[in-house]
Amino acid sequence: MNTQTVTVTGMTCGHCATSVREEVGGIPGVRTVDVDLSTGLVTIGSENQLDPSAISDAVAEAGYAVAG
Amino acid sequence: MNTQTVTVTGMTCGHCATSVREEVGGIPGVRTVDVDLSTGLVTIGSENQLDPSAISDAVAEAGYAVAG
Repeated sequence: MNTQTVTVTGMTCGHCATSVREEVGGIPGVRTVDVDLSTGLVTIGSENQLDPSAISDAVAEAGYAVAG
Repeated sequence: MNTQTVTVTGMTCGHCATSVREEVGGIPGVRTVDVDLSTGLVTIGSENQLDPSAISDAVAEAGYAVAG
């Protein structure tokens, strides 16, 4: 399994984390999504390496942004 | 129409406001629920005066608390 980590800004509560988890979890090939609310770190496990733009698009769809 | 206002603590984002709006909106007789996220003020319009404990129970059901 491939693992990628991004930092997401703007998440304030468990609802925010759930929104990001759902959107990122909907990217084809994604198996696991772990969200650390205190740091904004989102760790994504997937079958193959994901296009970073697919990740940032999903995060944006949830209403947040990938830092950097 | 009767109007009651409570201050709810712990709401951090629009998702939180939505949760409170949905739970308080489910109290029998409630017509309108306005949530001001920045102040925590929740203004409830209803057919008749509501039991304060029904409001605080609904807020608790959403995962938050009425101040005071």
